[in-house]
Amino acid sequence: MADAITPRADDYAQWYLDVIKAAKLADYSPVRGCMVIRPNGYALWENMQAALDRMFKDTGHENAYFPLFIPQSFLAKEAEHVEGFAKECAVVTHSRLKLTEAGELIADPASKLDENLIVRPTSETIIWNTYRDWIQSHRDLPILINQWANVVRWEMRTRLFLRTMEFLWQEGHTAHATEQEAVEETRRMLDVYATFAEEWMAMPVVRGVKSASERFAGAVDTLCIEALMQDGKALQAGTSHFLGQNFARAFDVTFQNRDNQLEHVWATSWGVSTRLIGALLMTHSDDQGLVLPPRLAPTQVVLIPIYRKDDEKALVMESADRLIAALKAAGLRVKLDAREEYRPGWKFNEYEVQGVPVRLALGPRDVQSGTIEVARRDTRTKESLAQEGLAARLTALLADIQQGLFDRAAAFRDANTHRVDTYDAFKEVLDEKGGFVLAHWDGSAETEAQIKEETKATIRCIPFDQEAEDGIDLVSGRPSRGRVVFARAY
Amino acid sequence: MADAITPRADDYAQWYLDVIKAAKLADYSPVRGCMVIRPNGYALWENMQAALDRMFKDTGHENAYFPLFIPQSFLAKEAEHVEGFAKECAVVTHSRLKLTEAGELIADPASKLDENLIVRPTSETIIWNTYRDWIQSHRDLPILINQWANVVRWEMRTRLFLRTMEFLWQEGHTAHATEQEAVEETRRMLDVYATFAEEWMAMPVVRGVKSASERFAGAVDTLCIEALMQDGKALQAGTSHFLGQNFARAFDVTFQNRDNQLEHVWATSWGVSTRLIGALLMTHSDDQGLVLPPRLAPTQVVLIPIYRKDDEKALVMESADRLIAALKAAGLRVKLDAREEYRPGWKFNEYEVQGVPVRLALGPRDVQSGTIEVARRDTRTKESLAQEGLAARLTALLADIQQGLFDRAAAFRDANTHRVDTYDAFKEVLDEKGGFVLAHWDGSAETEAQIKEETKATIRCIPFDQEAEDGIDLVSGRPSRGRVVFARAY
Repeated sequence: MADAITPRADDYAQWYLDVIKAAKLADYSPVRGCMVIRPNGYALWENMQAALDRMFKDTGHENAYFPLFIPQSFLAKEAEHVEGFAKECAVVTHSRLKLTEAGELIADPASKLDENLIVRPTSETIIWNTYRDWIQSHRDLPILINQWANVVRWEMRTRLFLRTMEFLWQEGHTAHATEQEAVEETRRMLDVYATFAEEWMAMPVVRGVKSASERFAGAVDTLCIEALMQDGKALQAGTSHFLGQNFARAFDVTFQNRDNQLEHVWATSWGVSTRLIGALLMTHSDDQGLVLPPRLAPTQVVLIPIYRKDDEKALVMESADRLIAALKAAGLRVKLDAREEYRPGWKFNEYEVQGVPVRLALGPRDVQSGTIEVARRDTRTKESLAQEGLAARLTALLADIQQGLFDRAAAFRDANTHRVDTYDAFKEVLDEKGGFVLAHWDGSAETEAQIKEETKATIRCIPFDQEAEDGIDLVSGRPSRGRVVFARAY
Repeated sequence: MADAITPRADDYAQWYLDVIKAAKLADYSPVRGCMVIRPNGYALWENMQAALDRMFKDTGHENAYFPLFIPQSFLAKEAEHVEGFAKECAVVTHSRLKLTEAGELIADPASKLDENLIVRPTSETIIWNTYRDWIQSHRDLPILINQWANVVRWEMRTRLFLRTMEFLWQEGHTAHATEQEAVEETRRMLDVYATFAEEWMAMPVVRGVKSASERFAGAVDTLCIEALMQDGKALQAGTSHFLGQNFARAFDVTFQNRDNQLEHVWATSWGVSTRLIGALLMTHSDDQGLVLPPRLAPTQVVLIPIYRKDDEKALVMESADRLIAALKAAGLRVKLDAREEYRPGWKFNEYEVQGVPVRLALGPRDVQSGTIEVARRDTRTKESLAQEGLAARLTALLADIQQGLFDRAAAFRDANTHRVDTYDAFKEVLDEKGGFVLAHWDGSAETEAQIKEETKATIRCIPFDQEAEDGIDLVSGRPSRGRVVFARAY
């Protein structure tokens, strides 16, 4: 039997964990807050990586790899940066274990390091220390580098994929000769993330800029994409930071410009992580389990042969093999599940839980009539289609499903985006409906802090497509020129 | 100017580092023994990963990801394992930094962990602890999982790629119901490595089994592939371990077999690492820099346009663009270097140092005559070829180069493999020629240790293709049934 999945309406947080378990995406590990990403979850990550990596390379970036460990003193060089990360660092202090005479294994005191090493929470410091050696002249710029890596942030409250102590991500780190070029890069990569979220994950996002208090530690500006989950909470799905010359100053990275003058280099950094798997799950999945957009699904189509007797088996398998070959030739990611130790009904359930977009069932009567049963995971509807021309029909069907998931998520997002003009209405919407709340804000950190304190809602972003509209701040009553996006968030 | 490369004959170790620097493959980092893998080096690793990953998947394996940190107590559960790794462990003891009143950044004593965490030197322990939860019945087996990850071993003497404190690798970890199946898997994956080494890296290898003293800590048997570097030293390029039931016993992983009895699970593990980049370099490169086999070269063909006046430029560039499109359409990894701030001669040198297999130069006269200059990196020879049919000719040329590199390396290896029958001859060959030395060994750890102590040569492997031949041990004079492969090694 498959694991039972708690309905969303009963307990959304438990539903989320149940789907992860039932779909075999991940497990918690014996190390608090660390996860084991199981093959089903990792295959999703691999598909995300492949799509993003192609987009990074198409925009001129190369991959590289920087050390896992950061000397403690590096972290201290950028004041806001160390302030932001000091409280969540895994600190390496020794380089050996030894067995005591009492038979106890301990960190060998004789191996204590001269300087502590920090397991990277992010790599700006080690990378900018390296860029100093790589950059002398404007001819060495821009540097457009991305890294696929694991990072560690010692979070106290963790949740699979959404917030884990160790996570996998990519971090882009670019160096530019001019402010304008760096600003453009920051926006270009945010747009790459938005395109990926919408076209691959079928997850609509709002693009915007963070308020000062929500900025990355060390950034001049943080751009973000924000998505709305089914329970009405927001999720930050990707960030792109304009770092100004902060890290170049901290690590003394200068270049000779075209006028032979020394200048500090301009920087950006940007990242998305395995958190996206959690976002994907909470955007599309249902009480039956995972629902995957076809472009990212490791298996897009599964075929389950159905037969009882040996002569039926021969008939059905011959037909199944032929169909599978045709679907593969058409570029579909297709799987034949001919295992005899499991019954068809068990398999139907298994692939439903795992979110395979299209399930085919083929029995002796289908073979005779030249048809096949086609079931969609998203709508849970079935129809019988002709085997002839199946590949083209399924290709079109998968594109439909992809678009349908996006449309459904966009409609949900729009239906759960509310404009409010009073603090009472603001609180009421948050408590009764959730979702994105568009409200006026005077731009002050005080108002923002008070609202967060009193309602747990934060400013998700000041949207790029903000309409000019005069209004007054919910709390202070001071003037505002446009609405920002508030929400309670993951 | 490019960095000068020390000739191999003058100082092989310095030549190795010079090529890495000049070809921009890697840098040392401020963290002792850790490296920065630069884009040129990482692109090579990506190509290696892609080829290996495909081979792993074709043999039924899936990727997954397990935590970076291992509880200290896990390491202690397998006695030989902890013995092998305790002395080279990065130990995480704290989870926060804090600023003292004196303004000094320290590991916050209040954040001391209850149990130390070890940065994984390899993942058998954390993985087998997880497999315990995944395996109940024979129906859950086999588990065929691979992980791409970073690992840390606190090495005292490091060398870029060959031995670094942190390195990138893949580690396969499989679980089986029977001993035979696990033994077969161990050999299957060693053969995958050998195929990859020979067909992709153009690096001939000897396959065999390690002596007991060279086994992986915790293995019943370690299989390996051994390659010979240009300086006559051996390099272990990959290992595949039959772990018996050692880790299943240590972590209490049992399954119900077909007879409803509980049995311990059988295990294998196998890995190759970024060390292969060092092996590749030392197999093919020369005093001019890197030489890359075409199947792994990030850029297989570079085209450098040559012109002086604007009308020449238009003529040459039109022709260059057309050729590039044709080569790309033929599936070649090709690059056009039209940068005007660098002269053609500088570019010729740059791509020679970086090991691009084929360099094309196209000038106005070539355009008129419908020809193009084709230079091979491996032989450093040039010829003029017709532009017509160029894609097919270059495809064949790249295959020739790939085969030529393998043949040259195999001839070198054969010429530097010596059969000796006395200890004096053994020492003389090692000191004067180096290479693989085939000699009789009585199978005892004492002889092996004495030879290592006195000559620095180790048994690289007992080759699978060992001929049955009676002889006597070099040192003990006791009988032997066949020769083993000795060498000094990286």
